[in-house]
Amino acid sequence: MAEAALLEDALAGQRLLINRQLAEYVDRLGSDCPDRLREAMAYSLLAGGKRLRPLLTLLACEAAGGNPQAALPAACAVEMIHTYSLIHDDLPAMDDDSLRRGRPTCHIQFGEAIAILAGDALLTLAFEVLARDVHPPQVAAACCADLAAAAGATGMVAGQTADFEAEGTGVAGIEQLQAIHLRKTGRLLRSALTMGGRIAGASPEALASLAQYGDKVGLAFQIADDLLDIVGEQEKMGKGVRKDANLGKLTYPFLLGMQESRKRARLLIDEACHALAVFGEASQRLEALAHFVLERDH
Amino acid sequence: MAEAALLEDALAGQRLLINRQLAEYVDRLGSDCPDRLREAMAYSLLAGGKRLRPLLTLLACEAAGGNPQAALPAACAVEMIHTYSLIHDDLPAMDDDSLRRGRPTCHIQFGEAIAILAGDALLTLAFEVLARDVHPPQVAAACCADLAAAAGATGMVAGQTADFEAEGTGVAGIEQLQAIHLRKTGRLLRSALTMGGRIAGASPEALASLAQYGDKVGLAFQIADDLLDIVGEQEKMGKGVRKDANLGKLTYPFLLGMQESRKRARLLIDEACHALAVFGEASQRLEALAHFVLERDH
Repeated sequence: MAEAALLEDALAGQRLLINRQLAEYVDRLGSDCPDRLREAMAYSLLAGGKRLRPLLTLLACEAAGGNPQAALPAACAVEMIHTYSLIHDDLPAMDDDSLRRGRPTCHIQFGEAIAILAGDALLTLAFEVLARDVHPPQVAAACCADLAAAAGATGMVAGQTADFEAEGTGVAGIEQLQAIHLRKTGRLLRSALTMGGRIAGASPEALASLAQYGDKVGLAFQIADDLLDIVGEQEKMGKGVRKDANLGKLTYPFLLGMQESRKRARLLIDEACHALAVFGEASQRLEALAHFVLERDH
Repeated sequence: MAEAALLEDALAGQRLLINRQLAEYVDRLGSDCPDRLREAMAYSLLAGGKRLRPLLTLLACEAAGGNPQAALPAACAVEMIHTYSLIHDDLPAMDDDSLRRGRPTCHIQFGEAIAILAGDALLTLAFEVLARDVHPPQVAAACCADLAAAAGATGMVAGQTADFEAEGTGVAGIEQLQAIHLRKTGRLLRSALTMGGRIAGASPEALASLAQYGDKVGLAFQIADDLLDIVGEQEKMGKGVRKDANLGKLTYPFLLGMQESRKRARLLIDEACHALAVFGEASQRLEALAHFVLERDH
């Protein structure tokens, strides 16, 4: 328990660093950026949240023997990509969500046009920050290629497309579900980790270990989210309103049941931590983070 | 005249190279990219057009003493950014256009969700191509930073935002118009040129000359476009339907008159070519291109 408190403190400290740096990046746009555009970017980017992806970047850098501070620009870049994807996902033509984290979504607050543009600007800023602020330039270029491959037409955007198309056609099997999640959320998590590793100068083998950790943890987090969607609603509403299931979305609990889903998530986390063996003690916090985030639903 | 024909032949050859490479980049996405997403990306990216921006990249590389072939990935990247901006600009929440180059716009053909995602994917692919295919990696990182700064929240997206906001508030002065154009179209043109220069290993002074050429040519092209909007409509419709003016958009002919606009465009082209003096004969085709494109409206 003391250990968990120590980890929470450490994560809170790093979250603060991340939030400060994200705010700094938006501030730095200055007067060349129209006010409403900057406000919309800040509104969505600085809305709080777990900062899971940037934390993974910092802890992966630490695990691979690097200075987490050097990975801060890459950590911010991955959070910008995540935020842009939420803004565009929430648009009326996509998921048509009006609330996120209890606040109006970006297009409700600023209008659709500004929301589209704010998403575009955050996506672009991610690559500017990577290319300019990651050193040396060879590593910057490698990070740009890594993040773009993860976020683009064969990664996150492919997953969003497949998810969108699956909404129309209804529930399919566990393999299709897993394939969508791997691309929609898994690839970006993996890139968060491998970028941290690249900045630490990790070997190809070490990068592969981080990627494996990322894939396992990504799926486990998705299962945990699906479970939270049910448990969270049950607690608030006093009954099992399945929001995702009602929207015709595929979820693990729907396909496997609650108990089997929990079991699978725990197994994935164990496998993820096993992949970190190569790093020894340096990956302690990365291992702890995996367990920690899974236990949100307990 | 024979010179003009030679230039046209040379440009046609380079356009072919660009179109082939763009098609190759989309093909290479393979089966990891959902079919409809790839189709939407190809539909907009391979729809033809003048390929002005990628041509500028190749000719700038040539002017600065490099091999234009080496600049092909950067040329494609800038065209991907241009195409994504058109797809998002055409969306109902933005300009709400249903036709582009005589064909249904991307969201009319594929639906709004796929159009948003195809734009996002092209924007992301631009940086993947730059980071992976431009060599050496230091130049790749410099190109990523250059293009992102040009396309983002203080460049093209800033210009789109200002343009969108100006539609509501109506016509203002020539300075505001110029400031919008410099960001909405000028910054990307400038980046097309400086990336070509960077790949040729150009000095900071040479890059500044290319940037100056880009800024002048960018404004001249915008004036030529505004003029075409009037002259083109006159020829087709037999009367002076001012499409842009009817939409409450600022244009040069509206603010300065036709004759003064033509004069200003020619002056800008002269100044642009003057900026290339430092390159001597190597920038001949780049100079010719400037005159050539201006003469579209004659």
